[in-house]
Amino acid sequence: MMSDPFFHPVSGFDLPRFAGVPSFMRLPVVTPDHPRFADVAIGLVGVPWDSGTTNRPGPRHGPRQLRDASTMIRAQHSVTGLRPFEAANCADLGDVGPNPADIQDSMARITAFYDRLVAQRIRPLTAGGDHLTSLPVLRALARDEALGMIHFDSHTDLFHSYFGGTMYTHGTPFRRAVEEGLLDPRRVIQIGIRGTMYDSEDRDFAKAEGIRIVEIEELFARGIPDVMAEAREIVGAGPTYVSYDIDFVDPTFAPGTGTPEVGGPNSFQALQVCRELYGVDIAGADLVEVSPPFDASGGTAFLGVSIMFELLCAMLAA
Amino acid sequence: MMSDPFFHPVSGFDLPRFAGVPSFMRLPVVTPDHPRFADVAIGLVGVPWDSGTTNRPGPRHGPRQLRDASTMIRAQHSVTGLRPFEAANCADLGDVGPNPADIQDSMARITAFYDRLVAQRIRPLTAGGDHLTSLPVLRALARDEALGMIHFDSHTDLFHSYFGGTMYTHGTPFRRAVEEGLLDPRRVIQIGIRGTMYDSEDRDFAKAEGIRIVEIEELFARGIPDVMAEAREIVGAGPTYVSYDIDFVDPTFAPGTGTPEVGGPNSFQALQVCRELYGVDIAGADLVEVSPPFDASGGTAFLGVSIMFELLCAMLAA
Amino acid sequence: MMSDPFFHPVSGFDLPRFAGVPSFMRLPVVTPDHPRFADVAIGLVGVPWDSGTTNRPGPRHGPRQLRDASTMIRAQHSVTGLRPFEAANCADLGDVGPNPADIQDSMARITAFYDRLVAQRIRPLTAGGDHLTSLPVLRALARDEALGMIHFDSHTDLFHSYFGGTMYTHGTPFRRAVEEGLLDPRRVIQIGIRGTMYDSEDRDFAKAEGIRIVEIEELFARGIPDVMAEAREIVGAGPTYVSYDIDFVDPTFAPGTGTPEVGGPNSFQALQVCRELYGVDIAGADLVEVSPPFDASGGTAFLGVSIMFELLCAMLAA
Amino acid sequence: MMSDPFFHPVSGFDLPRFAGVPSFMRLPVVTPDHPRFADVAIGLVGVPWDSGTTNRPGPRHGPRQLRDASTMIRAQHSVTGLRPFEAANCADLGDVGPNPADIQDSMARITAFYDRLVAQRIRPLTAGGDHLTSLPVLRALARDEALGMIHFDSHTDLFHSYFGGTMYTHGTPFRRAVEEGLLDPRRVIQIGIRGTMYDSEDRDFAKAEGIRIVEIEELFARGIPDVMAEAREIVGAGPTYVSYDIDFVDPTFAPGTGTPEVGGPNSFQALQVCRELYGVDIAGADLVEVSPPFDASGGTAFLGVSIMFELLCAMLAA
Amino acid sequence: MMSDPFFHPVSGFDLPRFAGVPSFMRLPVVTPDHPRFADVAIGLVGVPWDSGTTNRPGPRHGPRQLRDASTMIRAQHSVTGLRPFEAANCADLGDVGPNPADIQDSMARITAFYDRLVAQRIRPLTAGGDHLTSLPVLRALARDEALGMIHFDSHTDLFHSYFGGTMYTHGTPFRRAVEEGLLDPRRVIQIGIRGTMYDSEDRDFAKAEGIRIVEIEELFARGIPDVMAEAREIVGAGPTYVSYDIDFVDPTFAPGTGTPEVGGPNSFQALQVCRELYGVDIAGADLVEVSPPFDASGGTAFLGVSIMFELLCAMLAA
Amino acid sequence: MMSDPFFHPVSGFDLPRFAGVPSFMRLPVVTPDHPRFADVAIGLVGVPWDSGTTNRPGPRHGPRQLRDASTMIRAQHSVTGLRPFEAANCADLGDVGPNPADIQDSMARITAFYDRLVAQRIRPLTAGGDHLTSLPVLRALARDEALGMIHFDSHTDLFHSYFGGTMYTHGTPFRRAVEEGLLDPRRVIQIGIRGTMYDSEDRDFAKAEGIRIVEIEELFARGIPDVMAEAREIVGAGPTYVSYDIDFVDPTFAPGTGTPEVGGPNSFQALQVCRELYGVDIAGADLVEVSPPFDASGGTAFLGVSIMFELLCAMLAA
Repeated sequence: MMSDPFFHPVSGFDLPRFAGVPSFMRLPVVTPDHPRFADVAIGLVGVPWDSGTTNRPGPRHGPRQLRDASTMIRAQHSVTGLRPFEAANCADLGDVGPNPADIQDSMARITAFYDRLVAQRIRPLTAGGDHLTSLPVLRALARDEALGMIHFDSHTDLFHSYFGGTMYTHGTPFRRAVEEGLLDPRRVIQIGIRGTMYDSEDRDFAKAEGIRIVEIEELFARGIPDVMAEAREIVGAGPTYVSYDIDFVDPTFAPGTGTPEVGGPNSFQALQVCRELYGVDIAGADLVEVSPPFDASGGTAFLGVSIMFELLCAMLAA
Repeated sequence: MMSDPFFHPVSGFDLPRFAGVPSFMRLPVVTPDHPRFADVAIGLVGVPWDSGTTNRPGPRHGPRQLRDASTMIRAQHSVTGLRPFEAANCADLGDVGPNPADIQDSMARITAFYDRLVAQRIRPLTAGGDHLTSLPVLRALARDEALGMIHFDSHTDLFHSYFGGTMYTHGTPFRRAVEEGLLDPRRVIQIGIRGTMYDSEDRDFAKAEGIRIVEIEELFARGIPDVMAEAREIVGAGPTYVSYDIDFVDPTFAPGTGTPEVGGPNSFQALQVCRELYGVDIAGADLVEVSPPFDASGGTAFLGVSIMFELLCAMLAA
Repeated sequence: MMSDPFFHPVSGFDLPRFAGVPSFMRLPVVTPDHPRFADVAIGLVGVPWDSGTTNRPGPRHGPRQLRDASTMIRAQHSVTGLRPFEAANCADLGDVGPNPADIQDSMARITAFYDRLVAQRIRPLTAGGDHLTSLPVLRALARDEALGMIHFDSHTDLFHSYFGGTMYTHGTPFRRAVEEGLLDPRRVIQIGIRGTMYDSEDRDFAKAEGIRIVEIEELFARGIPDVMAEAREIVGAGPTYVSYDIDFVDPTFAPGTGTPEVGGPNSFQALQVCRELYGVDIAGADLVEVSPPFDASGGTAFLGVSIMFELLCAMLAA
Repeated sequence: MMSDPFFHPVSGFDLPRFAGVPSFMRLPVVTPDHPRFADVAIGLVGVPWDSGTTNRPGPRHGPRQLRDASTMIRAQHSVTGLRPFEAANCADLGDVGPNPADIQDSMARITAFYDRLVAQRIRPLTAGGDHLTSLPVLRALARDEALGMIHFDSHTDLFHSYFGGTMYTHGTPFRRAVEEGLLDPRRVIQIGIRGTMYDSEDRDFAKAEGIRIVEIEELFARGIPDVMAEAREIVGAGPTYVSYDIDFVDPTFAPGTGTPEVGGPNSFQALQVCRELYGVDIAGADLVEVSPPFDASGGTAFLGVSIMFELLCAMLAA
Repeated sequence: MMSDPFFHPVSGFDLPRFAGVPSFMRLPVVTPDHPRFADVAIGLVGVPWDSGTTNRPGPRHGPRQLRDASTMIRAQHSVTGLRPFEAANCADLGDVGPNPADIQDSMARITAFYDRLVAQRIRPLTAGGDHLTSLPVLRALARDEALGMIHFDSHTDLFHSYFGGTMYTHGTPFRRAVEEGLLDPRRVIQIGIRGTMYDSEDRDFAKAEGIRIVEIEELFARGIPDVMAEAREIVGAGPTYVSYDIDFVDPTFAPGTGTPEVGGPNSFQALQVCRELYGVDIAGADLVEVSPPFDASGGTAFLGVSIMFELLCAMLAA
Repeated sequence: MMSDPFFHPVSGFDLPRFAGVPSFMRLPVVTPDHPRFADVAIGLVGVPWDSGTTNRPGPRHGPRQLRDASTMIRAQHSVTGLRPFEAANCADLGDVGPNPADIQDSMARITAFYDRLVAQRIRPLTAGGDHLTSLPVLRALARDEALGMIHFDSHTDLFHSYFGGTMYTHGTPFRRAVEEGLLDPRRVIQIGIRGTMYDSEDRDFAKAEGIRIVEIEELFARGIPDVMAEAREIVGAGPTYVSYDIDFVDPTFAPGTGTPEVGGPNSFQALQVCRELYGVDIAGADLVEVSPPFDASGGTAFLGVSIMFELLCAMLAA
């Protein structure tokens, strides 16, 4: 399928990259009430929200900084030669409007927004927001069948609860998603896990449910191609969600995040894992936990949108 | 009353100001389970919480940065000669442990903590936290009678609700406090109000209830002594709460805050208003909305603790 | 005239201020090819360009940071009660696309863009860009008659040339504008001039042409109301341009600029001068020299858009 | 030995990591006058001091920033499963009070403090302070017998003197320690040495004394496991000091230090070397040269405390 | 006296201000071994040293950042029209080489350097360095007779000792200078004093010796012209030293310093006090305590060199 | 050849590294009018210029920040033992004075400056400036014969034109250099190319002309020694230019640049490639695109000067 020129991004040869109102990757802004909404194949969505954050806040500011940095993205992948904006109609669908003072209300708003995408068969590429964002998105995407998931992170986000029984935080989304039947745990792999631990409650749950955890030592020891081959095997041919927490990357490369863990992948490896997703049937993807207050330089966001571009190419490479 | 030497802060002539575990103003840490708790007259309390924030988050990190900056505070007020740590037993009571993912739970925890202070007749000087913090504090302090209030801020925080009906945000605490009978609106004055407005709904409420609003133009035109004389007259001899939002101060002097409004007082004026509180019967005071992620330099926090020192002196000058 | 609801900005009570693609003041984006272009009364335009800069560069990034900060602007002026977005159809007209490597080409592009505004009787409120921006804008606005000008700045920008004969820099725009007959020098006043000087060549030109210069010492000695009364008298009833260089303000309040001069007005005074423009027939206005690389915090930009809001109100208050 | 619950750190599931007065790793503060002092097995000590610094100052602020960052440390090592706070009584012993204007006085104070630890058989894990800190610490620890040392650094710190005969700087501590018989040079290995050199005077001393120097090229060529095996062989079974200068790590990962040298290990390698210390009889360890003024973000400090946690585990793994 | 063109600074019209090796105010570098040394009338000297600092270090980096910022200074004073570089031979004399690890050695080196200036009748304008710098400078300048002093600061720097008897810190220089007979205390005035106090030991000394202290409240109440008239009267016609601690200025305007005190003068007032020095017989002047690590933006340094330019003009205006 | 002591840099053992007017590597400043100019063998030149920049500006400030950081460079290469300042007369030749508002004038000034070096057989090591700088330098160096080139970069800089026909930008210098016969394309290799692409127009030109492009994936897959062996083979024995764009390095290691591309070499690899240049006949070299406004910390500049030191050694190792 070739895309409609309406959906082509502005070129930096025509308008300098620092000019213009910054939409994701300089794509047209096509909110759900826009006449071309139904023509979108892949929608880039911002979810400016961080109410699930247990430590340093800020991802509510993520989508805007990611949009700003994304004006540096050009049209073609330098390794694979893929030109995603010509391969499919891509658009910036705007932001979901959250309620920063009400978690349940925000989750309902997010799911409702993604329900509209599902209804139009638009595949979402989400810019978070903290990691709790993935839960209400999955509620829309997995309404019909549980999804597999390839999850890049330094944390499992599989905890039961925090602070004496609080069930919805950015440390619990995938525990809830498994409980709600949104994810098929035997088709879930978590890659890059590291850092000091409270205890092994999350790992115990993973083991019991059949979730595969690849800790950072194993990733570095075996190498990315080998681990990613296993990941593709685990998720198989079924529809799969890709969730990418920016804290998967070493915090020196991505300081703008709330719960960093040192000793992670560098920026080349951060991109490399995405290129190993080609062939997976990606039902949706997200890049979460970019927290601008902790990286005003925008370097984290630029890495984030470079990852988003890789994810976009992977969504179109299948 | 002369204070017990146990409650004297460490001197910078003995231990350099950059050394040591940083408690508020280098006072002893006396949490509620400490044997000397009952001997405290004025307790400095941190409330690291920002769930009511509608724009830029971060005040959850406020108490720690304020403690760090507070090691620069010395023993004597240079203008009035007051030596507060000798005048009364002052202590750092530690932080209230909030639940960052549950507003109602956090408010209950805060009120419960302050109930213990009230029971011991400890007057609190609170370091926020966003401005919603004042509401659960007032629920403890005003259990017996409605308080008056002198409120320094660029916003009235008198709005009815946000985002389609959300009642508890940092823009609504004093609307709730009036509704709950915690504040006597005819004994409330708000000083420094400015900035662009949504509409006049908050001002209409103030007018209807008898709350006095002094906008920044009036403050600058009349001068601080004149306005503060009126403030003292409005609150009269009854017990009064002092609530100081750091965004009262011009954001160039206090950039580390979430909802700045340009065109405010400078740092000299920020202190000067406190010195005009002498004589007021202060039942408790707070300094809120210091948001470290937006001022890693600590300059805002240093101004904040300088204000806290002024408030402490005012609490002891009556 | 009441504005069309299409042109009303998004409210922060509906969508949090950190959410959404950031247009100027959350207004609709109406580029010249938009069907509603002809209905615009006041157009906010970005000119992301700094090729005339002789010292520190960066204003090419100004419009984007100003748009980001402008989402903090609300609907109503707190002092005058004016609600500009209801008073007239206001819109974000997008950015002029400059050529960062060709000054003459860029100037031609800017003038061509503003010619389209003039043709539609849209009054422009420009966000620069460096101060050379004003020259190509004036070439469009003053095509029929020379304009008066009220100019806030720490420099006169009246120099003949730089670096051995270079005629177009941000230090020369108003010398050129006078030479080209775009400004009537006897209806020009420059306010806030200060800083060390090369020599008095610019002042000699001003004196010879009848341009009134108010240095900062005079401004502070006489006070803003008195000086601004003189300004209104100098420009009289004729069409007048207002040019506001952010370096008029003290660099502590506006560090994000390329050629700061210490000892200037504070942020309250920065707004106050604008409120004294009411009654002037403003044909267009600009706010220039905001340089984001020198203030990543965005504080300068927030002050900048606060000034833009004041200028917008002044354009509608006549 | 199982630790006493008094010595267990506060959990982030109970109190959010941003809350509370920040002690090292949220351990109890047990200064030498505390009743439980004698029960401590491993003491974390701050030495806020930088009088030996020859280039950029700042490590005097290190302990406080390290304490702040250390509230992110949890209870369990993710690779080895070790739970150090259960394995032994660990405590924050507070800071040694230095005299920032008198080097000799400060060194005497430091040695006196550590003498008390030695008297109680408390093993110290020190947070510097510049690298001269190690000298007065060694004077206490090696009173009875010379120690071996594994030393991670980009510099040898073996110089004779600076500035025409000054013997005590952060470039000379181990020259002095060898001269004073505190270190057995044949049981000393220095790892990671790099950067431009004045001359080879320090290397000549090392060669003459039998100190083993592993330059960064050798470390990268042979790999960490091989070099660390040699390190363990060199120090053998005797008591050994571990000194870790944060500038061992590449300055991109640890910018907050005074004398950076590019081309060093990344953060994963920074931790990896510590895990290869298991089995060494560690009499004490230090992490020095964290300089907060050069990294206000706290990223260097967070890496620093992650290293301290690794060192703590290594001290307990033997 | 007209200056020799050899001593004229480079113009920004010829070489852009960002170009060239940065000497003070773009003057020629004339170190003591330079053939033109004897022709210098006013020498700008850097003293990169901060060993007397009791709190946050960094002024050792001051002279370099001040030189960098000073390339923004132009040739003419905008208010008085003075052109100092034409009025006298001014030169950058380079830096005194300190010994950062030996206070006494450094003081001896500084005095020796200034002895050479005194021998050549070169008047010094010093860029510190912390405030202890003034003491060894005064030892050279006041060898023959005690000087008067006008001292701008937020602290008196008149303390007896620190940390149990340490006599040489940046809090003690003028106590020592009075004791050594370098200053005539009855011809000394200190202006801008503020901030919390340890006790009144310094004020008691001042009172006993006849030193006049003007606290900030008095300065603001009476106004700068009135206080400075008193200052000129106090120092009279005799030779006078001017010592300007950048922390005299409010820390929002000058954050790059080690011991800030909020509530001070703004940048306009910071310059204004210098213009009131005209007529005083200035034997030498210094600007101290600029600490670049706490203001990487260079704003403090730019204010600092603007003050140095004012001091230079005052030295030539007599 | 042994160098003249006049050309030896100041040692940090004599004068602390933070002291003194900062010339490149603390070498003497020998501008073309200096009596020793003709004795210079290798000249370090600053070109503070960025008029060719299409995205984020700032390299005009590069030379000054590089000079500042370069005072950290010592006398000896730690791996090869080379002592370059003893091997040849090296000097800081000052900056070329550009015209920031006229590209053609600036290029003419640069070429004229380098013509003087060529006339004296001084080999240049240039500190940019943006990458367009290389073109006017090559016009002087390749006047007699086309040079080979080893080019480290993330971009090819081989584009035809920008913005509708603009021929001189930092994306076009080597296209122009090939067209003008300054480079022999069959003796040109470009290493490290990566990032999203507009299209393949630059690669097509390279292929047609015989320029060898090594993308980052190939560099990492084959390893630096293998690729650099090929590079040496391609340039052969003839005179060769080395052009090093700092954005060759991963932006986490070198954030201070205008057009970063994530996923590049680390700082060890950044140095390693230079050490593989030994044996090449280097006619001149440059290090460009260091943009201080995007890295006020100076870390990028310190890496930049470390690379310059490596390049200097390579120029002398042949």
